[in-house]
Amino acid sequence: MTLSNILAPSTDTDALIDRRAVGYSLEAPFYTDPQIFDLDMAAIFARHWLFSAAEAEIPDPGDFVTVDIGAYSVIIVRDDDEEVRAFHNVCRHRGSRILQQACGSVGNLVCPYHQWTYRVDGELVYAESQPPEFDRSRLGLRPVHVRTLAGLIFICLGDEPPGDLDEVAAVLEPYLSPYGLADTKVAHQVDLVEEGNWKLVMENNRECQHCDTAHPELITAYFPLFGYSENDITPRLRPVFERYRAAQDHLSNACSVTGFPRDERRELDTRITGFQVSHLPLDGGGASFGADGNPVSRKLLGDIEDERFGDLSIHMQPNAWFHMLSDHAVVFRVLPVAPGRSVVRTTWLVHADAQEGVDYDVDNLTAVWNATNLQDRDLVAGAQRGVTDPGYVPGPYSMVEGDVESFVNWYVGRLRTYLTP
Amino acid sequence: MTLSNILAPSTDTDALIDRRAVGYSLEAPFYTDPQIFDLDMAAIFARHWLFSAAEAEIPDPGDFVTVDIGAYSVIIVRDDDEEVRAFHNVCRHRGSRILQQACGSVGNLVCPYHQWTYRVDGELVYAESQPPEFDRSRLGLRPVHVRTLAGLIFICLGDEPPGDLDEVAAVLEPYLSPYGLADTKVAHQVDLVEEGNWKLVMENNRECQHCDTAHPELITAYFPLFGYSENDITPRLRPVFERYRAAQDHLSNACSVTGFPRDERRELDTRITGFQVSHLPLDGGGASFGADGNPVSRKLLGDIEDERFGDLSIHMQPNAWFHMLSDHAVVFRVLPVAPGRSVVRTTWLVHADAQEGVDYDVDNLTAVWNATNLQDRDLVAGAQRGVTDPGYVPGPYSMVEGDVESFVNWYVGRLRTYLTP
Amino acid sequence: MTLSNILAPSTDTDALIDRRAVGYSLEAPFYTDPQIFDLDMAAIFARHWLFSAAEAEIPDPGDFVTVDIGAYSVIIVRDDDEEVRAFHNVCRHRGSRILQQACGSVGNLVCPYHQWTYRVDGELVYAESQPPEFDRSRLGLRPVHVRTLAGLIFICLGDEPPGDLDEVAAVLEPYLSPYGLADTKVAHQVDLVEEGNWKLVMENNRECQHCDTAHPELITAYFPLFGYSENDITPRLRPVFERYRAAQDHLSNACSVTGFPRDERRELDTRITGFQVSHLPLDGGGASFGADGNPVSRKLLGDIEDERFGDLSIHMQPNAWFHMLSDHAVVFRVLPVAPGRSVVRTTWLVHADAQEGVDYDVDNLTAVWNATNLQDRDLVAGAQRGVTDPGYVPGPYSMVEGDVESFVNWYVGRLRTYLTP
Repeated sequence: MTLSNILAPSTDTDALIDRRAVGYSLEAPFYTDPQIFDLDMAAIFARHWLFSAAEAEIPDPGDFVTVDIGAYSVIIVRDDDEEVRAFHNVCRHRGSRILQQACGSVGNLVCPYHQWTYRVDGELVYAESQPPEFDRSRLGLRPVHVRTLAGLIFICLGDEPPGDLDEVAAVLEPYLSPYGLADTKVAHQVDLVEEGNWKLVMENNRECQHCDTAHPELITAYFPLFGYSENDITPRLRPVFERYRAAQDHLSNACSVTGFPRDERRELDTRITGFQVSHLPLDGGGASFGADGNPVSRKLLGDIEDERFGDLSIHMQPNAWFHMLSDHAVVFRVLPVAPGRSVVRTTWLVHADAQEGVDYDVDNLTAVWNATNLQDRDLVAGAQRGVTDPGYVPGPYSMVEGDVESFVNWYVGRLRTYLTP
Repeated sequence: MTLSNILAPSTDTDALIDRRAVGYSLEAPFYTDPQIFDLDMAAIFARHWLFSAAEAEIPDPGDFVTVDIGAYSVIIVRDDDEEVRAFHNVCRHRGSRILQQACGSVGNLVCPYHQWTYRVDGELVYAESQPPEFDRSRLGLRPVHVRTLAGLIFICLGDEPPGDLDEVAAVLEPYLSPYGLADTKVAHQVDLVEEGNWKLVMENNRECQHCDTAHPELITAYFPLFGYSENDITPRLRPVFERYRAAQDHLSNACSVTGFPRDERRELDTRITGFQVSHLPLDGGGASFGADGNPVSRKLLGDIEDERFGDLSIHMQPNAWFHMLSDHAVVFRVLPVAPGRSVVRTTWLVHADAQEGVDYDVDNLTAVWNATNLQDRDLVAGAQRGVTDPGYVPGPYSMVEGDVESFVNWYVGRLRTYLTP
Repeated sequence: MTLSNILAPSTDTDALIDRRAVGYSLEAPFYTDPQIFDLDMAAIFARHWLFSAAEAEIPDPGDFVTVDIGAYSVIIVRDDDEEVRAFHNVCRHRGSRILQQACGSVGNLVCPYHQWTYRVDGELVYAESQPPEFDRSRLGLRPVHVRTLAGLIFICLGDEPPGDLDEVAAVLEPYLSPYGLADTKVAHQVDLVEEGNWKLVMENNRECQHCDTAHPELITAYFPLFGYSENDITPRLRPVFERYRAAQDHLSNACSVTGFPRDERRELDTRITGFQVSHLPLDGGGASFGADGNPVSRKLLGDIEDERFGDLSIHMQPNAWFHMLSDHAVVFRVLPVAPGRSVVRTTWLVHADAQEGVDYDVDNLTAVWNATNLQDRDLVAGAQRGVTDPGYVPGPYSMVEGDVESFVNWYVGRLRTYLTP
């Protein structure tokens, strides 16, 4: 037995992937090993479409957000033709960060170091004290692929973005377009640092077995029938079930009369840009995440006319989920920082004409998800600590953790594709 | 000369061990290198018996403490049959940390994530939404070896704990049992983070050459004759020496009449579970660590009837030392956190019937060791900074640092055994 | 394609150096890679002369400063013969740091752990409890090469310091000796932690293209003609140019009448101890960095009799720059802490007889460079963030960044020499 075999053998990622046990949680290195984190950055985050922002965050020409993805920083900016553009946030001179702010509005993009100046379409228009042979046209900002989908902005850091986003957009746009996200505004935005690997954040999002005890605020909005079929309904649950069936019928009818799609689509681990869409009725008032299921904004979104329009829930691999309600939308993204650290951004969107203090109250609008996010942060931190323990061994998924497994299937499949010549 | 030879050559641990110079402090990588730290975790902390807690910390069924050893977390809990048990603090489902608190009391061990529920004997008794083939009996908490010794709890993370703890217990129990540690309670406990490798903390504990200048509070309790033989006694020291001889005689007599062992036993580097026991008379009042050597608690421990019963001092490899006085006990453990960081826990035990404010005062009880620990923390931090300096070269031990060398002998020997097939 | 090729290939420093493109900024790993940082420590900071302190910081026997260079700590102390000495700040016993303070005054150097005691010439004079064969003469403090140059102290951690410092001293001393730095005192000193690689700090110092927008306080002292030749002078700039020519004439005359050298010397990348010296006239009052170019101290330095004596500016590789004015001197050093962190120390020296509150005011004395340093700190941090971004590619230097390129030439050349057998 040589020392090199004993001590921290370099992670054999191929072997780890090969011996992954279906039905069981991943082995610890996937959540803790810096080498696997680098692999995740290269294979997942630098190669796939990433939900990054809502178009409502940059309504006007010159408006920008910067997005940090590991060591990358990307400028997403609306250009003078109102197109959404994305660039590496790095000056072509000596490499200074150009924009330090998380968001704002600019005329041109000016590097603070030596004032190299770029138009919002990326073209270099000014650089001082250059020799005659200096060729500005070759020193524009380096572009990043960008695509909007019904008001949601996706970027891809890779040279060859996955080609299936058009197909996914064709599926999702009919679901999303009624919500008119392009005609919304940002009511609130929160960044939450979570002390856990990004996959633990995603896995936490992909099951609600923990909701009953962890999320008292959230579960009041949903029917307490998660995972039940009609055969499981006890006499005690029968009234709930009848209420649920009525809400289902109401929602199906509301979709039907307006021609909106209603059926669930699950392609979480069967394509590169994995996704799921489902439209769930809500309990109580049935409208939104307010107390007793009541609305949290008075202006309904887009083409929605019935406030009891349920929760259009969309999951996307690798880093996003969305809840669309009749009166507001909540969009979430997770971005990795380190093997054991991630940042979750939550953005609440309301109708562009809704007035704060009149049509909506920020505390009321954000109460449920702020509470839920903090609860999930603690669960994710506990999970990270646990899988970091040498005493951890993968355990079996329950029957209601199918979407967790789909996420892991997708992830492992994407690694395999990346690592296979 | 290639770059790989120049830059950070991978630490050649075998060579480091082979060229260790007897009589000299260890080379720097033993204190600073992350790879050696991993080796220490694997060869020492994951394979040896570690003093972890006093039984008095978990007097009743359901009482627990959690112990962090590097990335490991271990639950030590008293079960319903009053047996002490130890388990990895990791859920068998998806790996969440189960208990986040340092100590407390539970009925069952319930994972906060999805409520998997284990009895305090480790058996899984509840897991929701499982398929029919789910086998609870295979998913109990993973046990950790645990052993009590006269009221002190030792755990071993390895599959095959060192077999010599029974022999050590046979030696130590006659010394310890008179103190009746099972009939004590925790009066105070302090965790101190030290910015030094765990071995520097141990080495600091294993010599008192630094005490004269560093520990003014501590040395008042001991005779200022450390390292002296009778031949060294100057006329000025003669009165001290006579006082010392009288105290020795008093202590020997007190042991003799009660049948308690009195002789010193040194097996620090001659066995796997290295230890030393010695029984030292105290100066001044001769009773305890109070001002002028006076008692700090009015209720004497166990079978002790004479308050002038000296200091029963026990050292154990790799991570503990103990002081047993007539009126209280102080138990210490050091656990590694990182190459340059350790945590020292100090626990003061008094008779279970002693009442705070009546029989003892916490400030008075803890004054000497709180001061001493803080002084040692600074010395250890200075030592860590020094050995991290590329200008450091190992230096010679003095004549009164034999126990430091014994510790290092033991440590290097254990590494050799671990690394030899 | 194997995983090891994909993931974090071990930095191929030779290839990085070989493909360095002249005229372009360095590739990212030079600023971010821990392995390159170790190489910089070994090849640059452990082998070259480093400006470390002014003699004025240790005027009397026993006065010391400690200098931290990466993990090294060095004691610079004036011995009883008034010689400047330097030693590794590590006890020869078990390696404790000896002096914890940044500066102070001592009789002997006493280790706080076990009181090993060294004279200020490094000799060990006391070590307790040693065996008869103990040989103090072999356990003195380990010396570090040290050299003073007109009141500036340079150390070299290597065994064989570059031999050309004598030549450099022969050039620089005639420029520096008129300022009588040995007869100054420290009026103020500031350490600034910068979140950037040490080379970004140096590069920032080696061009003033950023000064116009970044340093409003600093540029008022200098003529706004940086990089201009007489052919570039527009009618609008003509009055400035005439003022500049007059100031040049005044300065040349002042040097001439006193026999001080006046010509610029540039040997930044053509020798091991690269340097540049130039003597620049100042605008406005033309005396110093006070408001409107006025003096900031009433006592002129050394042999200077004309307060309009310009700015004697000296740059030295790898880590220092100096500004000598008629009434004060400002000396700067940068030392690396980590790949992305450095510490810049700025020390203001005034005539030894100048009285604070009477002859000078610290706020007034330090205003310009305190502001400038903070501005540069932000620029360096932005540059570090940018070059850390995977979107960074090296960009072209402008026509006024020749000294940046000279620094990089010097650096790359020194690496090549180090890596070549």
